[in-house]
Amino acid sequence: MSATIFSEKHLRDFTESVFKAMGCSDAHSQLATDVLIKADLRGIDSHGVARLSGYVRLWEKQRINARPNIRIVHETASTATIDGDGGLGLVIAPFAMEVALKKAENCGSGWVSVRNSNHFGIAAYHSLMAVEKDMIGFAMTNASPLVAPTYANERLLGTNPMCYAFPAGKYEPVVVDMATSAAANGKLEIAQRTGKSIPDGWIIDQNGHSSTNPHELKEGGALLPLGSDVEHGSHKGFGLGATVDILSAVLSGANYGPWVPPFVSFLEPPADPVGLGIGHFIGAMRVDGFRPADEFKSHMDNWIRRFKSAKTINPDQKVIIPGEPEFEAEQFRKANGIPLVNAVVEDLNALALKLKIPALASN
Amino acid sequence: MSATIFSEKHLRDFTESVFKAMGCSDAHSQLATDVLIKADLRGIDSHGVARLSGYVRLWEKQRINARPNIRIVHETASTATIDGDGGLGLVIAPFAMEVALKKAENCGSGWVSVRNSNHFGIAAYHSLMAVEKDMIGFAMTNASPLVAPTYANERLLGTNPMCYAFPAGKYEPVVVDMATSAAANGKLEIAQRTGKSIPDGWIIDQNGHSSTNPHELKEGGALLPLGSDVEHGSHKGFGLGATVDILSAVLSGANYGPWVPPFVSFLEPPADPVGLGIGHFIGAMRVDGFRPADEFKSHMDNWIRRFKSAKTINPDQKVIIPGEPEFEAEQFRKANGIPLVNAVVEDLNALALKLKIPALASN
Repeated sequence: MSATIFSEKHLRDFTESVFKAMGCSDAHSQLATDVLIKADLRGIDSHGVARLSGYVRLWEKQRINARPNIRIVHETASTATIDGDGGLGLVIAPFAMEVALKKAENCGSGWVSVRNSNHFGIAAYHSLMAVEKDMIGFAMTNASPLVAPTYANERLLGTNPMCYAFPAGKYEPVVVDMATSAAANGKLEIAQRTGKSIPDGWIIDQNGHSSTNPHELKEGGALLPLGSDVEHGSHKGFGLGATVDILSAVLSGANYGPWVPPFVSFLEPPADPVGLGIGHFIGAMRVDGFRPADEFKSHMDNWIRRFKSAKTINPDQKVIIPGEPEFEAEQFRKANGIPLVNAVVEDLNALALKLKIPALASN
Repeated sequence: MSATIFSEKHLRDFTESVFKAMGCSDAHSQLATDVLIKADLRGIDSHGVARLSGYVRLWEKQRINARPNIRIVHETASTATIDGDGGLGLVIAPFAMEVALKKAENCGSGWVSVRNSNHFGIAAYHSLMAVEKDMIGFAMTNASPLVAPTYANERLLGTNPMCYAFPAGKYEPVVVDMATSAAANGKLEIAQRTGKSIPDGWIIDQNGHSSTNPHELKEGGALLPLGSDVEHGSHKGFGLGATVDILSAVLSGANYGPWVPPFVSFLEPPADPVGLGIGHFIGAMRVDGFRPADEFKSHMDNWIRRFKSAKTINPDQKVIIPGEPEFEAEQFRKANGIPLVNAVVEDLNALALKLKIPALASN
């Protein structure tokens, strides 16, 4: 697929102008932009500006509130529940992390369950906010139902990602950021576009049989939990997806399981909601709540060094430290710009026309 | 394999007498027994009294301290680090959970990283302590290196289980308790004993090739992370195992990665430790730190009901709620007694002879 390279600055300006055109405040436009651009910089193209027109369509349907009154509705010294007032998850999740960070400063850790939100972008953005303050960051979210639990022939869970981020010393932070399904939906979308078949163990068709045809997902099929089948531990992937769903939504009062409203505007939310919007779970723990931060970081460096130097099956393929490829992508794209495939550029320029803002400049 | 059924009471008395013969206090003997018997009741036979002679052998080698001075070495209002003084993980982990529960009572949540410990039995025992107080319980531990990270041909992580337990209302608690490897080591041991082959995707042999021969694990092979291979997300299983290792050991000052001392007495601990003993991570959050407990529990019941009634591929195989089979086993075995295979009975009676305590009575 051919692509055009844009400077980070230009994509930021464009993205901010989209959020402003939706009626978001300057501060929210800037923050939401920062979350999306971070995804593009880190090479998570499915979660960056390619999603902009999706957010706009939900706003047009009045399913995203551009001027939310985000507020704490329940709290203790180290815990809180936040109501996002139907706003962008892109601004609600950082708000929740700020609350968690303040609580962690005061009493060692902070844990925030969020209801009445929308898609929050990449989980790593939020957990890395903690790392900057020498804390360990946690971020999870539930999502539209696409995954069938073990034995089920029905979509009951989202790809429900969980993210853990740990500061290191000389090395970049360790960032575990993963969907709890065997394959992320983005990988399916790529296979659908390119017409390629997918490995067994990613999806089942509408009859519950394993399928290598990526289009089956749209025809009544479902994604499989991490582990793929019972023999390989798919009940564990199901358990992790359930954990994310409960911490994000049953705990906060958001919708859970099959009641989570779809991210796409052409599908209506369930008529019988069990809560408000979608849910997130955000946490931060001060490293020095456990041991001095410099001691921890020097052992993190030792951990990373040992795993990086592991004996491997193929000498040309080293062990990849979680988060390493994303940091490398970020360095490269910060220096060289962000490539967008032409379909995304066309989509963004159609959006610009609709919102009466300047189109993307092609260089 | 033929088995003998013992009453819970008789196995408790026997197990307590073993710990007392090691020199453990009455209170510690009773607590350690409770943890092991809970595993047998719940059907996790690999983690119950079958492990008793393993603990004794480590004590004989002075690698378990029967009279530990378990103490908090660092803390904030919601966090703590505990040094287990080389004692039984079976008593150190409940001590850590008590600390977490007290902190959660005071400020909403409590998080404890533990160093200088040993094998802690089943993670679910510890996280269920929180559920009894209407809290959400977390329990993780690192373990002897058996798992090769994605791409590696070297054992660098344990099966590093993570457990999340959530209270419900009318239903039993939801308990996600899982090794972060594709298969637990106990499943390999069963295949080794019965001479059966294992599925592709559980282990690699010493050359890094997938193998269906369970004996390859002992001949230089390694377990694979949950996800089994790159195509099916083994980097996610690796990331989860890494998360457990870091929270349990890098955070507390225990040994991590390949430095974790082996559970078996015939293998010596590494000569160059990077910390003290093995590590755990234990946490508790008050449900009413987020929303009223009765509201949460009634939505948990709704969550469970919806997932239990899911449309399934085979109408005879319903979706299994995490923790459900273990609660059913517990009810059955509480009423009908605990079966022990004859090899375990013989092993326990040899232990009794060595420790000069009464043997198991056969009915």
